[in-house]
Order: sequence, then C-alpha cells, then structure tokens
Amino acid sequence: MIEQKLADLGITLPNAPAPAANYVPYVQSGNLVFIAGQVCFGADGKLADRHKGKLGGEVSDEAGKEAARLCAINLLAQLNAATGGDLDRVTRCVRLGGFVNARPDYAAIPQIVNGASDLMVEVFGDIGRHARSAVGCAELPFDCAVEVEGIFEIK
Amino acid sequence: MIEQKLADLGITLPNAPAPAANYVPYVQSGNLVFIAGQVCFGADGKLADRHKGKLGGEVSDEAGKEAARLCAINLLAQLNAATGGDLDRVTRCVRLGGFVNARPDYAAIPQIVNGASDLMVEVFGDIGRHARSAVGCAELPFDCAVEVEGIFEIK
Amino acid sequence: MIEQKLADLGITLPNAPAPAANYVPYVQSGNLVFIAGQVCFGADGKLADRHKGKLGGEVSDEAGKEAARLCAINLLAQLNAATGGDLDRVTRCVRLGGFVNARPDYAAIPQIVNGASDLMVEVFGDIGRHARSAVGCAELPFDCAVEVEGIFEIK
Repeated sequence: MIEQKLADLGITLPNAPAPAANYVPYVQSGNLVFIAGQVCFGADGKLADRHKGKLGGEVSDEAGKEAARLCAINLLAQLNAATGGDLDRVTRCVRLGGFVNARPDYAAIPQIVNGASDLMVEVFGDIGRHARSAVGCAELPFDCAVEVEGIFEIK
Repeated sequence: MIEQKLADLGITLPNAPAPAANYVPYVQSGNLVFIAGQVCFGADGKLADRHKGKLGGEVSDEAGKEAARLCAINLLAQLNAATGGDLDRVTRCVRLGGFVNARPDYAAIPQIVNGASDLMVEVFGDIGRHARSAVGCAELPFDCAVEVEGIFEIK
Repeated sequence: MIEQKLADLGITLPNAPAPAANYVPYVQSGNLVFIAGQVCFGADGKLADRHKGKLGGEVSDEAGKEAARLCAINLLAQLNAATGGDLDRVTRCVRLGGFVNARPDYAAIPQIVNGASDLMVEVFGDIGRHARSAVGCAELPFDCAVEVEGIFEIK
C-alpha cells in the first residue's frame, strides 16, 4: 500500500545511502527505529549544486525545501531497509529532527523543513504526522543545505 | 497535585500552541511522549521583542532565561493536552533538548537553558530532573531566542 | 569484559562528570538510557586549550577528533554509573548526537564526530554501532569544540 503510494507520487527509493562515517544508518530498539541524520543527496548519490550551501545565502528557499524532501526520501530508503522492504509495517512517524544550514539571519526554517514533513504525510497519511524540531545550524556535513533525522514506530 | 503546583507558581498554561507547519505538537509511542520543539511565544501567543534575536546580541541573558522558561511552559501545555489534562500521569521528564539562538562567541548556553530545566524541577520535583543537551544555533524559527523540545514518560 | 576492553585501550573512566546546570546526567526509561550532552572535558575535569574553540578556527581537525573521543569517554562514564558499574549490561549503542562547534565554512563534521563513533565500536564491537546525527553549531557550552549526547539500550 505504501509502495503503491510511493509509485503514485513518482518516488523511486534510492539504495539506502551508506553512512558518511563509522556508524550505521539505523538501529531498532523495541519497536522504535532510530534513523541516522540523512543529508540531501539525490537518487544518483550526488549532492546537487543547488542543494549545497546556506539558506539565506546561495541556496534558494525553493531549493532548500527540495533538499528537505530529498532528506525525507533518504529516510524512507533507510526505513525500507529497516522494515525488510515492507513499509506497511510502519505504524507511526514519531519524530523528525530538521537541521537547516542557515545564515545567522535566516529565520524561515520551519518552511524549509516542511519539505520533509509534507512528504511524510503524503506517503503515510495521518500516521505520517510527527513531532518535530527545526533549527538553523552553522554548518552541515558536506555543506549540505539540510539534514533530517527520524524516529519511527514499526510493528 | 501538579495542577495545584502550577497555580502555586502562578503559571496558567496557555492553549497548547499550534505547530508552525505540517506536523503535530506531540506523538506518544509506548509510554513516551515526544513533544515538538517549542519556541518562546508567550501566553498571548506572541513573540515579545525581548525574546527575539540572539544571545550575545540583542537578547539579554535575563531575557534569554525567561525565553527558555516560556518554552518550558509551552512544553507543559502540550504535555497537558497529551495527558488529557492530567499532568499527574507524568512519571518522568526524560530529556530536554535546548537550542539557543546564539552569536558565535556566546558560550553561556547552559545558564540560558536552565530557565527551562529549573521550571521542570519546580513543577515536578525530582521526577522533573532530566537528561539534557544544550547547544547554540545559527538561527531559530521566527528568530526566537530559544527553542526547547522534550521527551516525557507517562502512565 | 567491557571493563577489560577499556583497560586494553588504556582508558580509565573519569568520575562521571556533574552536569553544568539543574539537570541530571542520565535518565532511564524502560531499557533505554538517555544520557545528557557531554562536553570534551578531560579526565582531570578540565577543558584543555586545544579542545576549546571552533573547528575551522583555532581548533585543529586532530584536536577536534580527540575532543569527540573525550565526549564519548564521558558518555561511557555516565553509562557506567547508569548500569551500576557493569557496562556488560549494555546491549546497544542506539544513537549518538554529535554537535561540533564550527565556523560557518567548516564542513568536515562527520570526520570530527568519528572520534566518538570510533570509540564506541572499539569498546563495544558490533553493538557499539549506532545511528547518528552530526551538525555544526554556532557555539557550545564553555566554548567546547564538541558535545555528544547518547541513547543506549541496556538489560
């Protein structure tokens, strides 16, 4: 059902991106899956120029929101791996943590992170609605515009 | 009992503030309640000028600590909603994440976030003592001085 | 066994550092232990000059990685207290949150936080592998170069 929803949205999940360092992309404890912060690499495994840099600087609001959506797609790719390829086992998107690479005067942070939040609701409906924190960071790995981490409940 | 404690402290919980975007203010999973990052809007639903901007800049230390306390009051308002209006169901404040809108040279971050931590202990006593992270951010939503998220255990 | 591993690595756990403010160093809920953000104070309880300041500024990459390792040692000291001195009760390092005190143009954040991640794997082996987020902050408490928080599963 979720697989069909992704197809309807025209989303092909990338191979779950490998971590940038000595850690794993997700850990399950009880029925919670903690997913590592995902950055805004595209389905080709590359960081597009338009998703590199700071909001309020070289990255436009539109590109920032796209970047957040890419982070969410990468979260789904990890979640797909965590559920053995069965996203219908997801019972709730519990929490997203959104980190925006922002200039010190760029305050439209919620609007950017919406790119990730909106996707969760598009894909999962009501169980995609989550608690969320969104903050502006001095810098992010690889100078990515956005990073998003997540906690999901699965059955 | 907690209701009485709040009254003793002269705190009237505001209506639980609505999220700034496409998410929900809290999600319960098992007996943990994850509450979205709350910013320092007052009981009138507005951001006071003195709670807007950066610590080490236009926001004084005193105003910053007040801002953190407001975030904590907003967390309690959400927690009150999450517990169906019965804060006596709270068994522990598990974790607070404090984000301070800080200039790159402002290091008194723990003292600011104490505004939130102190309130939890004033309201809940020992079960209000929590694990905590406190960091300085480049920017926060609406240029708020402080944002605090929380995880609570309830019965 | 973990005690022996620490000895093999030449690591003596410091006394679990006291929190910088009105909170506690860890809270257990169910079989999860949430540990407060630990900064890079050394075993002598002091912040070395080389671990103070910003990556991309006065703190070298090498010193930054060392600082992350110190944060991880402090996490282990807290975890040791949380487990009543028996680190063999740890069943998983679930998640680390790494905060790097970074200049706005310093993007090698994952490499710095590896100082903490690598230690977890050295000490715990496969169960030390964790989900992780790593971000650059405008400032950290005491102008520390690195802060790391953690969630562990214990039995």
